[in-house]
Amino acid sequence: MIDINCDMGEGLGNEESLMPYIRSANIACGFHAGDQETMDRVVALCLRYKVNIGAHPSFPDKPNFGRTNMYLTAKEVYTLVTEQLLTIDTIVKKHGAILHHVKPHGALYNMAARDGELASAIALAVKDFDASLVYYGLSRSLMIQEAEKAGLQTAHEVFADRSYQTDGSLTPRTLPGALLETVEEVLKQVVGMVSENRVTTLSGEKISIRADTICIHGDGPHALEFARSIHQILYEK
Amino acid sequence: MIDINCDMGEGLGNEESLMPYIRSANIACGFHAGDQETMDRVVALCLRYKVNIGAHPSFPDKPNFGRTNMYLTAKEVYTLVTEQLLTIDTIVKKHGAILHHVKPHGALYNMAARDGELASAIALAVKDFDASLVYYGLSRSLMIQEAEKAGLQTAHEVFADRSYQTDGSLTPRTLPGALLETVEEVLKQVVGMVSENRVTTLSGEKISIRADTICIHGDGPHALEFARSIHQILYEK
Amino acid sequence: MIDINCDMGEGLGNEESLMPYIRSANIACGFHAGDQETMDRVVALCLRYKVNIGAHPSFPDKPNFGRTNMYLTAKEVYTLVTEQLLTIDTIVKKHGAILHHVKPHGALYNMAARDGELASAIALAVKDFDASLVYYGLSRSLMIQEAEKAGLQTAHEVFADRSYQTDGSLTPRTLPGALLETVEEVLKQVVGMVSENRVTTLSGEKISIRADTICIHGDGPHALEFARSIHQILYEK
Amino acid sequence: MIDINCDMGEGLGNEESLMPYIRSANIACGFHAGDQETMDRVVALCLRYKVNIGAHPSFPDKPNFGRTNMYLTAKEVYTLVTEQLLTIDTIVKKHGAILHHVKPHGALYNMAARDGELASAIALAVKDFDASLVYYGLSRSLMIQEAEKAGLQTAHEVFADRSYQTDGSLTPRTLPGALLETVEEVLKQVVGMVSENRVTTLSGEKISIRADTICIHGDGPHALEFARSIHQILYEK
Repeated sequence: MIDINCDMGEGLGNEESLMPYIRSANIACGFHAGDQETMDRVVALCLRYKVNIGAHPSFPDKPNFGRTNMYLTAKEVYTLVTEQLLTIDTIVKKHGAILHHVKPHGALYNMAARDGELASAIALAVKDFDASLVYYGLSRSLMIQEAEKAGLQTAHEVFADRSYQTDGSLTPRTLPGALLETVEEVLKQVVGMVSENRVTTLSGEKISIRADTICIHGDGPHALEFARSIHQILYEK
Repeated sequence: MIDINCDMGEGLGNEESLMPYIRSANIACGFHAGDQETMDRVVALCLRYKVNIGAHPSFPDKPNFGRTNMYLTAKEVYTLVTEQLLTIDTIVKKHGAILHHVKPHGALYNMAARDGELASAIALAVKDFDASLVYYGLSRSLMIQEAEKAGLQTAHEVFADRSYQTDGSLTPRTLPGALLETVEEVLKQVVGMVSENRVTTLSGEKISIRADTICIHGDGPHALEFARSIHQILYEK
Repeated sequence: MIDINCDMGEGLGNEESLMPYIRSANIACGFHAGDQETMDRVVALCLRYKVNIGAHPSFPDKPNFGRTNMYLTAKEVYTLVTEQLLTIDTIVKKHGAILHHVKPHGALYNMAARDGELASAIALAVKDFDASLVYYGLSRSLMIQEAEKAGLQTAHEVFADRSYQTDGSLTPRTLPGALLETVEEVLKQVVGMVSENRVTTLSGEKISIRADTICIHGDGPHALEFARSIHQILYEK
Repeated sequence: MIDINCDMGEGLGNEESLMPYIRSANIACGFHAGDQETMDRVVALCLRYKVNIGAHPSFPDKPNFGRTNMYLTAKEVYTLVTEQLLTIDTIVKKHGAILHHVKPHGALYNMAARDGELASAIALAVKDFDASLVYYGLSRSLMIQEAEKAGLQTAHEVFADRSYQTDGSLTPRTLPGALLETVEEVLKQVVGMVSENRVTTLSGEKISIRADTICIHGDGPHALEFARSIHQILYEK
């Protein structure tokens, strides 16, 4: 059964509404959003709702919500990922719980999907921190390859409400057509990815895809409707 | 004590997180967002959290979230407001509760603030539906004047996170500086409006303002943080 | 409008279900039930649901849930009440909130209703701690008289689901007929007390009563049904 | 991993507090407690908290909460179990969910543990209704044997807070020592049952036991504390 993941602790306060519809949460660790209070609150919700607890590390960039590219050395990346893992893990342990996975955020995620050196630095930080963590990354991208090279268990991630390019990358948010906007489009993409392992790109081609986990978003005017519909089509009878 | 109001039932699912920090909810009636399920759910939350239940009627415009200007006859406006009041009131009554207020949404709100004829059509629809409803409208605008002419009780509304123009109108969302983005800016504006009845406009002037109710927003990356801080500065010790 | 109060933080975990139906909570301070975690959790719920926060001090008697008579000196009583007020007030302050009232628990409550000396010791401890606290006590009993003598504001308390004796005391829990068991009986008693200021005793006489606040119970197989029905008959249309 | 089950929808309103600590809920079907509203509410909570949904049929006996023995024909028992399964299943289906298990309540449970004919009638009703339902019954009792004879999948149930007799039955609630009253006693019994498959009876002997699912109770002054502690010792690190 495919996993459903969602980024959380990013300031909207709708985590509890979304919890019933997801299996895994990626929690902002304070670098692009979040603080001790939000991390603590979301971890507690994950325990209440039996949701896997994950770290969601980012470039240190609150003003731009971690969405701006930063060009750092491998050592700097290693350090900032480690730091964020440590922060969230301390809170998770305080709840008597266990950190389950890691998924990079925003620009860090997008850059690592294409840049082997950056991907390798992240993977190494994760592995050195706790080699049993599952690495969530863009399906069939360099970041997944590097994580597997490092010996980590991986989950190939697909997106419910983002359109794809021919090379399997996501259409950047700044381009038209980046976001699917109706529940029909979203469900069609989800069903295709899960049952046929294929997705139709923005330009109309069908490309193959591997889907271990599907990302849903908590923001936008249809957040709850999308979440509920995707859960229903995947899990309910 | 000043009232705190918030638009709700618009698809994000964070209503329950915000409930502790507000006194009044404006519930989308299906024309720009919302359906039977969301109205029902938010009304139930209002009862749980002892929050005033209000209608939030809009132009009929789901694709643009009610934010595009529409030019309708007074009769058409009267009809669409009545229709939305009836929809939400039926649900409110089913819960054994009472509708408390009305606040127009988006383009309908902004246009009515400047257009006496439109404002008068809305006010008449409200009064004919239930003359005991409180009318929430832009502080010292035409829409408030028309509501008072119609004999309705009014609440002058101010905004916590929107910047003001010299004429007391809000800076349109499409212009730079329309939204205050840090909690410090927001709290400074709130305190000024409540304790001095003044607000500093985008161009730096101080204009006087009347604040019976303050609007907070449920979307944006700081929704919950702003709500909590505003409630704290106004209500807690 | 009459107040509805409920004892909370006593181990059942149904506080959140009851919050929508009450106006005031009496929180166990650790002497008969409760600990830091429960006090903290219930105070947070009171803030979420806009419910008055009260202390619920008891004899130090966890094994018997504070229901066994203890014979202590006035000084000992003064000390144990003060201690419990201090405990809960520290937690309340941490939340940026204010302690609103005090209601003695169990045997301490029942004894103080008849014993002026004990009642006086409690009242003095409350007044010395914070003279603005409201004292909740058995309607027209000695404990209310002593609180008023000490200059405290009082709330005469009546019970929704307990039967009364001819002298205005409650039928002890160990006697048959102590508890009203159907929603019809409970609502009949509530309506009589609120609208006629009278209650029919277990032996069938009508006695007059003063009702500022009505106590509902969170335990028993009908807890939620009673709470919802009482709130409905008193507050809803 | 052992399952944790809890009886729900019986009037206390603390279901949501308990949900994080359980895996399976047994929902009262209206014969000893519960109505459409409680069944609907608890099913919705089960979906939110990813808890297995079960039926909890009883003798038709609201006044005594289903705790009084009734002597009915096999046909009458078959009919009343079927009726209750139908009631709850209709509500479950309305939520797009699936009924997972059945556990008889109170006197029906206790009698079926010793009476093969009664047990057979219940098992037959369950099997005819839906042969994929899991049958929860007293560990190693006649009711489990009959369910297995009928071809049903079973879960041997043990109790966290009830003491055992030498023959593996529960000490009746009317006898002293029937209930374990401290968290230490409860945890000791749970750990023994799960890790050694043994339980110490009220008279001090050790008897062997099979534990597929453990029952916790939602009432009593320590309900939440027991639930949290048992979950912690079984599931958390």
